[in-house]
Amino acid sequence: MDLMQEINKRANFFNTVLEKFLKNGEPTSLYDAVRYIPLAGGKRLRPGLAMISCEAVSGDIKNVIPLAIAVELIHNFTLVHDDIMDKSKIRRNIPSVHIKFDEPTAIIAGDLLFAMAFGAMHDIQGDLSIFKDVEFGLIDCVREISEGQHLDMEFEKRKNITEDQYLKMILKKTAILFMYSAEAGAILGGGTKDQTNAMNEYGKSLGLGFQIHDDYLDMSSEKKILGKDIGNDIRNGKKTLIAVHCLNNASKYDKKLLERIFGNLKATDKEVKQVFELFKKVGSIEYAKNTAIKYCEKAKKAIEILPDSHAKEILNELANYSINREK
Amino acid sequence: MDLMQEINKRANFFNTVLEKFLKNGEPTSLYDAVRYIPLAGGKRLRPGLAMISCEAVSGDIKNVIPLAIAVELIHNFTLVHDDIMDKSKIRRNIPSVHIKFDEPTAIIAGDLLFAMAFGAMHDIQGDLSIFKDVEFGLIDCVREISEGQHLDMEFEKRKNITEDQYLKMILKKTAILFMYSAEAGAILGGGTKDQTNAMNEYGKSLGLGFQIHDDYLDMSSEKKILGKDIGNDIRNGKKTLIAVHCLNNASKYDKKLLERIFGNLKATDKEVKQVFELFKKVGSIEYAKNTAIKYCEKAKKAIEILPDSHAKEILNELANYSINREK
Repeated sequence: MDLMQEINKRANFFNTVLEKFLKNGEPTSLYDAVRYIPLAGGKRLRPGLAMISCEAVSGDIKNVIPLAIAVELIHNFTLVHDDIMDKSKIRRNIPSVHIKFDEPTAIIAGDLLFAMAFGAMHDIQGDLSIFKDVEFGLIDCVREISEGQHLDMEFEKRKNITEDQYLKMILKKTAILFMYSAEAGAILGGGTKDQTNAMNEYGKSLGLGFQIHDDYLDMSSEKKILGKDIGNDIRNGKKTLIAVHCLNNASKYDKKLLERIFGNLKATDKEVKQVFELFKKVGSIEYAKNTAIKYCEKAKKAIEILPDSHAKEILNELANYSINREK
Repeated sequence: MDLMQEINKRANFFNTVLEKFLKNGEPTSLYDAVRYIPLAGGKRLRPGLAMISCEAVSGDIKNVIPLAIAVELIHNFTLVHDDIMDKSKIRRNIPSVHIKFDEPTAIIAGDLLFAMAFGAMHDIQGDLSIFKDVEFGLIDCVREISEGQHLDMEFEKRKNITEDQYLKMILKKTAILFMYSAEAGAILGGGTKDQTNAMNEYGKSLGLGFQIHDDYLDMSSEKKILGKDIGNDIRNGKKTLIAVHCLNNASKYDKKLLERIFGNLKATDKEVKQVFELFKKVGSIEYAKNTAIKYCEKAKKAIEILPDSHAKEILNELANYSINREK
C-alpha cells in the first residue's frame, strides 16, 4: 500500500469540499484573508484522520465531512493566531496572514475561521445528543490548544521544565486535535465505545509521536541547527524534548554551558553549535527519536482491537510515517 | 420604576454566576488574563437583556443563565481582540489586556473567552433542537461581529460611505448581539414565534439606537471633541453617523474643508474644531440624535404585542435610557 497515495486521495476529495465551504463571504477583503491559509495546501492530516477513523469502524464517510472541515479550520485558526504571537513570517511556504494582509485582519480572520469551524459542525446529521457531545469535545480542544500555546510561550522564559510538563504541553498544543479527530471520526462513523476509545488512544499517541519527531527532525543535522529558525530556537530557549532531556541530564559542568547559551538571544553561531554537540553527547537527540518510536508503537498497539481492514492498514502505516518522515 | 435599580439587581445576580463560571483554570497566568476584563465590571446590558426578555415571556430565569454568560463572554472576547486591533490602551477604566499582560496573551485570552462562551451554551437544558438552533445563532453573531469590526476599520480608509453602509456596519458590529440576546432570551423563556420575533426587532432597534447615541454623545460638546480620542476619531476619518451625514450633505465648498481635514492625521486642534462646527452647521449632530430617537421608538413599538408586565416596563425604560444616557 502506498500511504501517500491514500492520504492524497482523501486530501484531494477534502480540498474540493473545503473550497466549496469557503467560497462565499463579504467583505471580500476579509474573506480573502480567511481563505488564504486553509487553501494554501497542507497535508490535511487531521481531516484525513477523521475520515480514515470513520472508515476503520465501517462508517459512512459523508457523516464525517462536517467534522473534517471543522478540525482543519480549527487547526488553521490556531496557525493564523500563533504566527502573530510567534512573529512567524512564513507559513506553508508563503507569507503568513499578518504579513500578507495586516495584523488586525489576521486576528479577525482567525476568529472567523474559529466561528466557521463551529458553523461546519452544525451540518452534522443524525442523533442530536451525539452532535452535542462531539461539538462539546471540539470546544474543549480549543481550550486545551489555547492553554498549550500559552504554556509553550511561558516555557521559553523558564530556566527548566520536567519531561512531564513538556509532554503535557504538547498533548494540549498538538496531540489533542489528532486525538479528537480520530475519536470523533469513529463516533460519527458509528463505532462502539471500545473502538472510539481505541481511536482516542491512537490519535493521542500519534500526535505526541508526530510532535516529538518534529523536534527531532529540526535537530537531526548540523546544517538545520545553523539554519536561522533552529538557531533561534536555541537562542530563544525553546523547550523541545531534546532541550528538556539535556537540561535534566547534562553534567553539572555541561549545565553551566547550557545556562550560558541556551535562551541567550545574543549567542553566536559557534555557541549554538556547542549546544548542538552537547545535545548529541548527552544522548538527547537519540532519546527524542526513541520516544517518538515508543509513541508510534503505542498508537499501533491501541488499534489492534479494530477488525482488519484497509483503513486499519492505513492507520498503521500513518503511525510509521509519523516517525520516519523527513519533513 | 427605577431602571438602574432593575438593571443593577440583575447585573449583581449575573456577576455572582459569572465569577463562579470563571473561577478555575490552569495555567493561572493565562486565566488571570481571561478573567481580567469580564470581571472588571461593565453594565451587563446583553445578559440583562437576555434575562429581561425571558421574563417578558414569563420564562424561568434559570433557563437563560447559560445564554447570559455566553453573550457576555462573546462581548468580552470581541473587546479584548478589538483593543489590540484599535491599539486602545484603556478598557473599563483599567489598562486593556494587551497592555496589562502582553499581546500574545491577549490574543489567546480572547480565543479562550470565545471557546468558554460556547462551553457555557452547552449548559442549556431541555429540547436539543432548540439548543442547536440557539447555539447556531451565536456562531452567526460572531461571524457578523467579525465582519462588522473589519468593515469599521476598512471604512476609516474610505473617502466616503453611504448611510446604508454605515447602518449595515453597526448592525453587524454592535446591534446583532443585542438582537440575539433579546431573541434567544425569549426563545429559551418559551416565548411564541410572534414574541421572539418582537424581541428580535426590539434588540436590533435598541442596539442601533444605542450605537448611534454613542456617536452622538462623543460629539455632543466641544470639550469632548477636543478630548484626545474624539479629536483622533476625526483625524482617523472614523465614519460615525454624524460624519457620514455631513460627508453626504455638506455643500461643495464645505466638502473641500472635510476632504482636507477629516482623515488627516496631522490636523491641528483648530482644524478639528472647524470640522465640529461644520457638523453642527450641516445639522449632522442633530440628525444623529433624531435617528437614535427613531430607533428607540421602533424598539418600543416592536414590543407592543407583549402582554403587560413589569419586564415589559423595564424594556420600554431601557429603550428610553439608550438615547437619554449621558455616558
